[in-house]
This record gives sequence, C-alpha cells and structure tokens, in this order.
Amino acid sequence: MTRSERRSYSLGEIRERFGGEVAGDPATEVRRVATLEAASADCIAFFANARYLSQLKTTRAGAVILGEQARDATRIPRIVSDNPYAYFARVSNLLNPAPPPRPGIHSSAVVDPAASVSADAEVGPCAVIGARARISSGCIIGAGCTIGEAAIIGDDCRLYANVTVYHDCVIGSRAIVHSGAVIGADGFGIAMEEGRWVKVPQVGRVVIGDDVEIGANTTIDRGALDDTVIEEGVKLDNQIQIGHNVHIGAHTAIAACAGVAGSARIGRHCRIGGASGIAGHLTIADNVEISTYTLVTKSIGQAGTYTGAYVFEPHAQWRRNAVQLRHLAELADRVRALEGGSVKPRRSKR
Amino acid sequence: MTRSERRSYSLGEIRERFGGEVAGDPATEVRRVATLEAASADCIAFFANARYLSQLKTTRAGAVILGEQARDATRIPRIVSDNPYAYFARVSNLLNPAPPPRPGIHSSAVVDPAASVSADAEVGPCAVIGARARISSGCIIGAGCTIGEAAIIGDDCRLYANVTVYHDCVIGSRAIVHSGAVIGADGFGIAMEEGRWVKVPQVGRVVIGDDVEIGANTTIDRGALDDTVIEEGVKLDNQIQIGHNVHIGAHTAIAACAGVAGSARIGRHCRIGGASGIAGHLTIADNVEISTYTLVTKSIGQAGTYTGAYVFEPHAQWRRNAVQLRHLAELADRVRALEGGSVKPRRSKR
Amino acid sequence: MTRSERRSYSLGEIRERFGGEVAGDPATEVRRVATLEAASADCIAFFANARYLSQLKTTRAGAVILGEQARDATRIPRIVSDNPYAYFARVSNLLNPAPPPRPGIHSSAVVDPAASVSADAEVGPCAVIGARARISSGCIIGAGCTIGEAAIIGDDCRLYANVTVYHDCVIGSRAIVHSGAVIGADGFGIAMEEGRWVKVPQVGRVVIGDDVEIGANTTIDRGALDDTVIEEGVKLDNQIQIGHNVHIGAHTAIAACAGVAGSARIGRHCRIGGASGIAGHLTIADNVEISTYTLVTKSIGQAGTYTGAYVFEPHAQWRRNAVQLRHLAELADRVRALEGGSVKPRRSKR
Repeated sequence: MTRSERRSYSLGEIRERFGGEVAGDPATEVRRVATLEAASADCIAFFANARYLSQLKTTRAGAVILGEQARDATRIPRIVSDNPYAYFARVSNLLNPAPPPRPGIHSSAVVDPAASVSADAEVGPCAVIGARARISSGCIIGAGCTIGEAAIIGDDCRLYANVTVYHDCVIGSRAIVHSGAVIGADGFGIAMEEGRWVKVPQVGRVVIGDDVEIGANTTIDRGALDDTVIEEGVKLDNQIQIGHNVHIGAHTAIAACAGVAGSARIGRHCRIGGASGIAGHLTIADNVEISTYTLVTKSIGQAGTYTGAYVFEPHAQWRRNAVQLRHLAELADRVRALEGGSVKPRRSKR
Repeated sequence: MTRSERRSYSLGEIRERFGGEVAGDPATEVRRVATLEAASADCIAFFANARYLSQLKTTRAGAVILGEQARDATRIPRIVSDNPYAYFARVSNLLNPAPPPRPGIHSSAVVDPAASVSADAEVGPCAVIGARARISSGCIIGAGCTIGEAAIIGDDCRLYANVTVYHDCVIGSRAIVHSGAVIGADGFGIAMEEGRWVKVPQVGRVVIGDDVEIGANTTIDRGALDDTVIEEGVKLDNQIQIGHNVHIGAHTAIAACAGVAGSARIGRHCRIGGASGIAGHLTIADNVEISTYTLVTKSIGQAGTYTGAYVFEPHAQWRRNAVQLRHLAELADRVRALEGGSVKPRRSKR
Repeated sequence: MTRSERRSYSLGEIRERFGGEVAGDPATEVRRVATLEAASADCIAFFANARYLSQLKTTRAGAVILGEQARDATRIPRIVSDNPYAYFARVSNLLNPAPPPRPGIHSSAVVDPAASVSADAEVGPCAVIGARARISSGCIIGAGCTIGEAAIIGDDCRLYANVTVYHDCVIGSRAIVHSGAVIGADGFGIAMEEGRWVKVPQVGRVVIGDDVEIGANTTIDRGALDDTVIEEGVKLDNQIQIGHNVHIGAHTAIAACAGVAGSARIGRHCRIGGASGIAGHLTIADNVEISTYTLVTKSIGQAGTYTGAYVFEPHAQWRRNAVQLRHLAELADRVRALEGGSVKPRRSKR
C-alpha cells in the first residue's frame, strides 16, 4: 500500500472508535502519523511531554492528540485523551494497518507433507515447515523462516524473514517475531566429567503466550527438562538472551541486549532495562523495574526500581577514582580507625 | 521419534554402560528424564543439590541418580555415582538420542558441483554449499544454512537451521552449531587515514577443533592475517562475540553474551561468565574463572576467580552512593589528611 | 582465486599507486600480506608498534611497511610511510581484491517481477528480493538474503549470506553487510494502556550512507516516525544494536556488542568501545571516544575520552571492596564529620 492509496479518517471517526474528546473541527481528515516537527497538514501528531511544547506551538500538523492539561496549548484540531501516547498508538495502528496475509504457500517454500498450514496463512519464499508443524489461521511466515518439527504457531502471527523456531516449540496468537530471532535452541547445559564437558540434552520446549513481540536476533532457549515460558503480552526488544527454563510473567517488557540466565523467574508487569543481566535461579517480584546496565544477582521481593550501573566520567578522572575502588574496604577501615573504632585485621592481598 | 516409540532401559542396563552402583531393583525400567518435581513412574531424575532434598522425598520418579552421601535419603530405585549430574547427562543422551542424519541432499538445496558432500550426510532444504566446500560423513546441515567456498565441516557435525559459515573456515568433528551463528565474518579491522576508515582485508580463517558447541546467534570472526582458533571441547553459549585472532584453549566454557576482543588468548579449562568482556591482546591463564558482567582489562597469569561487577541496590540508595564514586580519589585524600599524611595536589577538574 | 593464481606486485609498483618511499630493492616482488611472525619471502608485513621490534628483527618477510623512525631498524626491502597501518591496508586490498560479482540471478533466488536488479549484479541462491526493491550496479546479494519491498541497495554493495533488509530501507553505495545483520526491524515502541502494551507502529525507515560496513548479527531498527540515519563511512562491528531514530555521524566507528538506545544522536568521528551503552535521547559531540563497557547516561558536549567501567580484581578482594559501595555515601558523611563539617541527615534505608 503506497501513501497515495491510504484512506483518511476524520477526527470524528477516530473518536467514535477510540473515545476521547475532539476539540476543534471533527471533520478534520488525517491520513498519516508524524512527529510534531515533521508533520504536514494531512498528519496527526501527539504531544505527551512538556519538553516538546515549542514544537506544539509551531507544528504544521493537521491535528494533534494531547492530554487534558494541554488542551488549550494549541488551536489545532485535537483529540484530548488521558493517555495521549497510547491513543496515538491506536490511531497509528488504524492509519498503518499491517499488511494482511496473502494466503498461500510460495512455490519455493518447502512444507513437509505432514505439516498443517491453514488455507488463509501466507508462507513466504524459501520458508521451511517441518513435519507435524502447525501454521494457524492468518499467519504470515516470512521468507527464509524455518519452523521445526511439531512446532505450533498460533493464529495471526507474523514472523518476519529468517526467523528460526526449533522443534516442538509453541507460540500463541498474534505474536510478532522479528528477523534473526531464534526460538528453542538448546540451553547451555553441560556437565564436567574428567576434564571434558558432557552435553546435557535439552528436552524441554519454549512455550510463548498470546500477544508477545520478539525482537530481531533475540534468542530464547528451550528448557533443559521442563519448559521455558514467556507469558502473554511480554515484549522483548532486540538481541535479548533468555536462558533455559526462564519464566517471564505477563506484560513484562525487556529492552535490548538484556540477558536472563537459566531458571530465573521474572514477575508480571516488570520493566527490564537494556543490557541488564538477571542471574540464574532467582525470583523477581511483579512490577519491578531494573535499570539499564544493572546486574541483578539476588532475588527481588518487592516492587520498585533497582540500579547498579557505574557512573561515567572523563577518562582521567575515572582513572583516579576507579583505582580507589580496589582500596575501598581499606579506606573504610581507616575511617573507622580515625573514629576510634576497632578494625578487623585483613588478610594480606592475594 | 515420539515418546511412545522410545525404548526403555533398566537400571541394570544403564549401570552396564556407565558404571556406578544400583541400589534397589536393577530391573526398574525408565524411558524419560525429568526433574524430581515433574517426574512420573517411567522417569529417571537426579539429585545433586541439597536444596532439592524435599523434592527428593516427594518425587514420583521411577528412579533417581544421586551421590554416595544421599544414598539413603530415599528408597526409590537409584543409581549411586560420584558425579550424579554428569551421570545424568550420560543417561539423558542415552534416552534422548539426537536424531540421526537422513542421508541425502534436499532437492531445494543448492550444492556447488565442485563441493564434496558425503553420501551419508544430510543437507536440508534451501541450504547452500559453496564450491570446494566439504561436508563430511554423518553431518546434518540444517535448512537455510550457507557453507562458504572451501569451508570444511568435519564428521558428524550438526548445524541447525540458518547457520552461516564463511569461506575457508574449518570446523572439526562432532560440532553442534545453533541457528543464527555466524562463523568467519570479517574481523573489525580498519585503519584511519585522513579522516576516513580504510578496511583492512581479513585474510585469516576460523579454525575450530573437535567437540565444540556454538550457541545461537554467536559470532566468531575470521583472523585478520593469521587464524582465529577455537580448540577442542570449547562450549560457547548464545550471542557471544569472538573477535579476530582470538585463541580459546580446549574445554573452556563461555556463557551467553560475553565478548572477547581481538587477539586475546584464553587458556584451557576456563569458565567465562555471561556478559563478561575480555579486552584485546591479553592472555588469560588456564583454569581462570571470570564472573558474570566482569570486564577483564589486563592479562591474568594465575588460576582463580576474578570479578568486577557493580552491586545493585534500590535506585534511591544507588543514587546516593554512586555519585560518591566521582569523588572517591578526593575522599581518599581527605582520609589521608585526617591521618596526618601528605596529600598530593590534584589537578583541577577537566 | 587460489594463492597460486594471485599476481604479485613489486615495491616499485606499489609505491606508484600509494606513494611513500622505497628503501631497498624496488623490484622486490610480494604476493601476500602476513604478520611479521608468520611471513615468508613472498609476503609483505607491517611494523607499527614498537612492541613488535624483536619480530621485525627476525621476520622472514620479503618486504615490510614501516614508519620513518623505524627506517633503519631492518635491512629488509621496505616502504616508509607516515601511516604504515593504513598503507598496509591499501596494499592488502591490492593483494586481496574482493571477488567481483558474478552477474546474474541464481535460479533458486526469488525476485519479485516488480523488483529492479541491475544486469551486472549477483543475486545468490535462495535470496529473496521484494516488490519494487532496487539492487544497483555491481552488488552482490549473498545466499539466503531477504530484501524487503521497496528497499534500495546502492552500487557495489556486498551483502554476505543471510542478511535481512526490511521494506523501504535505503543503503548507500559500497556497503559491506555481514551475515545475520537485520536492517529495519521495528523499533521498541510500546505504549502502556490499562495494564497491557499497545504496539506503536514503526513507520520510519533506516537510511544508510555510502561506505558503511555493518557487522554480523548487528541490528539497526527502523524509525518510529522519522528515519534512523547512519551517515557515510560509519563502521559497525558485530552484534551492535542501534535503536529507532538514532543518528550516527559520518566516520564514527563502534566496536562489537555496543548498544545505542532510541533517538540518541552520536557525532562524527567518534569511537565507541565494545559493549558500551548509549542511553536514549541524548547527544554526543564529534570526536568523542567512549571506553569499553561504559554506559553513557548524559549528553557529552566536548570531545575527549569518557569511561565508566568497574575495575576487576580477584574475587575475594572484590567482595570486600564492592560491599562498601553500598555504604559509600555514609562513608563520605563520616569523613566529613571527622573533618568537623556538618552532615546532612540521611533517610533510613528503604
């Protein structure tokens, strides 16, 4: 669908679908979403952060979505919502509908005779569907995807090109999986025996709930014995690593490059920052927020925000300060001595 | 092979193969491996961590593998081993044999006429084998894999779907390579000349020994001039980055998301934690353990465990403490002054 | 091209192409590049680091490239250059020319009838080119690559196997893109609404300038509304994550495993270390260097080097010191008290 082919919607039509209140002419038609800065007359933008007030003042958008407190900050036709960003997301989905499946199996795709592919699903070029796999109604399986034996892809899933799903894994409905994601590779199970590693077969699956999105090149390992579980509504950004037997609660969002080690259990509605790490075999409560670059080494039983990142500085300053880290325990002892306290003798340096 | 088709083994048969001692009825038959918690009567589980003692007491497993000290902690038929986890790994491999190759080249695969593919190897759908490449006996090359020109894949290797091996790289026998792994891409060799980067051709190879496992989306760069070398028995988890001309000693294991910069030399039997980083051009001795999230910036000459991760805290506490990091050198000076010592004058802040 | 087929060049010929000065016999012929240590008589090596002086003394190279100050450190025929490493890069490119395209579309590739592929481009086996995509003159599209609808690949680009380019993205001329890279997947745009995430459609593109190299399994997200922009000459190593609407200035180089969060703006000629992180919505000036493993949480307005990595130690020492991090603010207070200063009361621990 090219831009010229898009249909437009009036603010009145939009209000009818999504609620909110229209201020200004409800017949105003919009066709595209845009930032305040880049918008033109056929665009609808949103304002949700006071930082962009000057852009709101000068935007050429045809309409804008904003909160109650900003209702009078512009005279542009507008939709007032108590959650302008989510409202904008709804409008953008309306104006940018995902292309529907083009039902059928491309002639270059390789579908095992024992696989089941819904008649209204699309299987792209060079995709490979294994024996006993199931591709459900409304799915789009992108070019070059490989779906392993007996894997199940739920209704209306969209797998972009070059996704790999290993045998026996299960994905719920309406998943979006981006290119390069690997679902169900073996977890890192090895046992040391007389100086050599023996592989521990990974016989669990990955089981993913409904409405999950998985970013590009993210990897989710199959369980060692039991399953790895991603509950409904979880959103995973790119290049995330989920170890075997991890359990991620519903509606948790994890930013790019994070890693979750084996058997960790993360609660519902958590927000895990980019490049953070969750150690194995621990439990994180619901509604926990982990900051970017933070390594979580113990269970967290209480909602809240947790952080452990080093602050950066100009290199020369960092050098002077960082070297003292190696003497911090000693420094604490010296302060205690100055205070007249007793100091435990320290073992000599190793 | 579905579960119902699996054959079962008696504890006596298992002891015959792997040694150990059977306590209880050696005619007990098991068909599957499972956790203590999930096991049913046809399952064998293992007990190797006192933390799970209560599960041992209540398990419905048909048999269990455990250490000498736990021999009498249950009456279930059991195998006593001095390394129960490794024993379990052996048993699991017996009960979960990897599917053998289905010899032949899929009609959709593209094999260069000048490539050599063993008659008993399997080449999956849409795989591409370049000129002068060699696929040895017993290999499985998964769907969508690309094997570059003159690359050599040793006996009995298993490459899952969508693995890329660049030209001239060499993989030993019995490798397992997971989806999305890229072996032999160019190292990051660039030279600055008058404000622009000039690419330095990467003319080395990647040479991988026998019995290596490589995780999903892991990347191993080819050497700049000489080769990048991964010795036998090395186990690499997912999303690891190995730079050009790195050398990893035999039986070293590296957890997910770690990165090893160019020309680093890691010893044998090391254990490198997840998301850790090894700087370039340094040497790490045998039997070194690096903790998760630790950046190694200098050579390590002695076996032992090394750590450098920031401890996490509730965010408000972290904020109060972390800001002091930027004043740590100054704090040390102030303590020295209090002690009556002399303080070197510090340069003013940049 | 095998080694025996390579042509050789005399030092005189090389000087004619790239300048510099020849010391010793300009008729000396070289055919290959090598390290000082591994070089044989048909090789040319380089010497740019005093650390390798002993290797220069003993090398069996036929010729060597070195700086003015090292001119007399050997009697081997040599080229004297004021930038020996960049000179070496030029010579290596001469001796190791990238294989030219083999024009044509492989019979197993799937090219949409509405796509445009230059007659002198090469499209490899099982590659998929979408409708209205353009593959320009001199391109090599590797096996298994997927180029989305309306994507544009400029002249003389080289995409190795299994690269994914999403719809509408634009890549300039002479790009090198390594296997597993994903260009144009959706950015991580989600809005919270009544306990569930609503996806924000990502309608921007990725626009990449000329002479960019992108490493294996690197991901560059498309813009949410406006585009993600990578300017000319940028070099990205493996497994880098670039968030939506990031802007990277010309000739900046980023080492492996780094992550740049959404809407960050990085200047020209920056050098970003491996596994570093750049937070979203900030600006980094030109010529900034970020050290390995450093998290940048604020804008940087001034050229220079910035660092924030934890120093590693033997584990037992680290434990003693790291625990004090959690008391650092309190320690600073205690020092202030000893100095006779006033101490702000601290809130009790949360």
